[in-house]
Amino acid sequence: MKKISNAPETLVTDELQGFVKLHSDKVRLIEGTTCVARRIPKEKGKVKLVIGNGAGHEPAVIGWVGKGMFDLNVVGDVFTAPSGDKIYQGIEAIDDGSPILLMVQNHAGDVLNANYAYSKAKKKGIDIYKVIFYDDIASAPKEFMEDRRGIGGMYFYAKIVGAMAEAGASAEECISMFEAVRDNTRTYGVAFSACTHPATGMEMFGYLKDNDLIEPGMGVHGEGSGNHCVPMPKAAELAEMTGNVLLEDKPYHANDNLLVVVNGAGSTTCMEMNIFYNEFERFLTKKQINVVGGCAGNYLTTQELAGLSVSLCSVNQTMLDLWNAPCCCAILTK
Amino acid sequence: MKKISNAPETLVTDELQGFVKLHSDKVRLIEGTTCVARRIPKEKGKVKLVIGNGAGHEPAVIGWVGKGMFDLNVVGDVFTAPSGDKIYQGIEAIDDGSPILLMVQNHAGDVLNANYAYSKAKKKGIDIYKVIFYDDIASAPKEFMEDRRGIGGMYFYAKIVGAMAEAGASAEECISMFEAVRDNTRTYGVAFSACTHPATGMEMFGYLKDNDLIEPGMGVHGEGSGNHCVPMPKAAELAEMTGNVLLEDKPYHANDNLLVVVNGAGSTTCMEMNIFYNEFERFLTKKQINVVGGCAGNYLTTQELAGLSVSLCSVNQTMLDLWNAPCCCAILTK
Repeated sequence: MKKISNAPETLVTDELQGFVKLHSDKVRLIEGTTCVARRIPKEKGKVKLVIGNGAGHEPAVIGWVGKGMFDLNVVGDVFTAPSGDKIYQGIEAIDDGSPILLMVQNHAGDVLNANYAYSKAKKKGIDIYKVIFYDDIASAPKEFMEDRRGIGGMYFYAKIVGAMAEAGASAEECISMFEAVRDNTRTYGVAFSACTHPATGMEMFGYLKDNDLIEPGMGVHGEGSGNHCVPMPKAAELAEMTGNVLLEDKPYHANDNLLVVVNGAGSTTCMEMNIFYNEFERFLTKKQINVVGGCAGNYLTTQELAGLSVSLCSVNQTMLDLWNAPCCCAILTK
Repeated sequence: MKKISNAPETLVTDELQGFVKLHSDKVRLIEGTTCVARRIPKEKGKVKLVIGNGAGHEPAVIGWVGKGMFDLNVVGDVFTAPSGDKIYQGIEAIDDGSPILLMVQNHAGDVLNANYAYSKAKKKGIDIYKVIFYDDIASAPKEFMEDRRGIGGMYFYAKIVGAMAEAGASAEECISMFEAVRDNTRTYGVAFSACTHPATGMEMFGYLKDNDLIEPGMGVHGEGSGNHCVPMPKAAELAEMTGNVLLEDKPYHANDNLLVVVNGAGSTTCMEMNIFYNEFERFLTKKQINVVGGCAGNYLTTQELAGLSVSLCSVNQTMLDLWNAPCCCAILTK
């Protein structure tokens, strides 16, 4: 395996030490844990946003910790949710009596451990709330919306709800906004290549290697789409294919105002993401749907996997203002 | 080939269209060209920073165009310097009588075409200046410093000289600062993997595929190190190896204040770069060298090549203040 590493056992701690050295103005590592917290805590009384997730997807989620985004990210082992106790430990470390909103991406391990941490915090008298997000349309049909996985749409929740919390909204207001954003968000992904697990050195998605096939609908660990591979289309066709699937699931309408996040899976080149974004914006424009904001980058990755997901969120003016509000984290500073 | 593309002929124009859509608050495309310019021009009279380079290395250099960095980036075909006429055309388009500083990375095609554009602009009465940068210690011995290639150290020149130009320094002051930064900068790179040319679909660096070898000293197109491959070391050893080579070339001293840029070659994971940075910072700390600023990311890439380069620059307080000065471009906003 040709990945920079000292040993599988120290991957996450080594990484987090490096990350906080690089971004010491924005974040800190909570001593003796794998919890990344805001360098300067929010004013007491404001809602704090917390999330736990497995490592291996960087720069997410550690890169979204900072002013106007997450207050705390509890990091697990590679592709492994942090234990409930670890999540609780992080929550306890930042608890100052302010409301805490635990955001949970819908993956079995994340949900189980978040539930444990939530219950424990509740029992300890912490003012805690919990929301679950799911946006991946490939992972379950519309009728089972709540079974869908939480993936790239996280950017919307983190930014919009984060800005609202920063501005001093109550936990109820944050939850209500979160639910509105979740209702308006859809994500669809496509994978192109193999990648390597950084701890085991094992190849993941080997069936995508040395051929011209891509896999539509694949999630961030290769979950669940049933390997329905298709030949690689041209950029414009790929935009149309993903766009049509998204609009079939949620019929965004003419004159709707949409945010677009093109999330690279890891080794998708900047050139490709720019080309794709150009075609995807054209696709929406043809449908008379307005793109009012967008970004493209390797944010929530699966190591050096190639591929991307597109996340859409229809927004009103309040949501758009929150999307554009100042923030300061490793991935985004406005 | 599994890269998002419509056709080899439209790679660069498609990409640039997408890029300016994504960053329309920061940049614009000059009509009918492949020139990316600042959205809002600098105040008249301030030095404008211009650079030309081949495409395929994104997010650099287009991602460094914006307030406090480059004013104009003239983009050529993939891995091909833009022609002298194209560079001149871009310069003419932004010329308002302010001094123009043409920064040239030391690669044969870039230098030839920049010289042509410079001469033509001179003849037309444009107030133009030219500097060449070279920082890659693997490409020529110390005695032939000026033959070295210009690579990842560009980040220092763009940021520090860009901030100075933004603050209203004269062309002479900018050039003098540029030369000081160049004298203080060294870069050394290591490549790990193969990648694919996005226009031809041909594999580049195939000798790095399916083995445990890495190539120290490789440049951004695979130039000139003679394929002296070595087995992949552990993270700490890799930091020590690259650090020793750099310090042998320029003996940075105890108590020196250094900026460190870890530049990923494209598919180097964020996890790896954080781990490497952690070890590299430790290496410097052991030598009692101070790290006063640093960043890590896939900035100046070679498509989805894996690997990285480390650029070091020793700075005084003035340089450090310029490094930390506000800026607003796609790669960095402060």
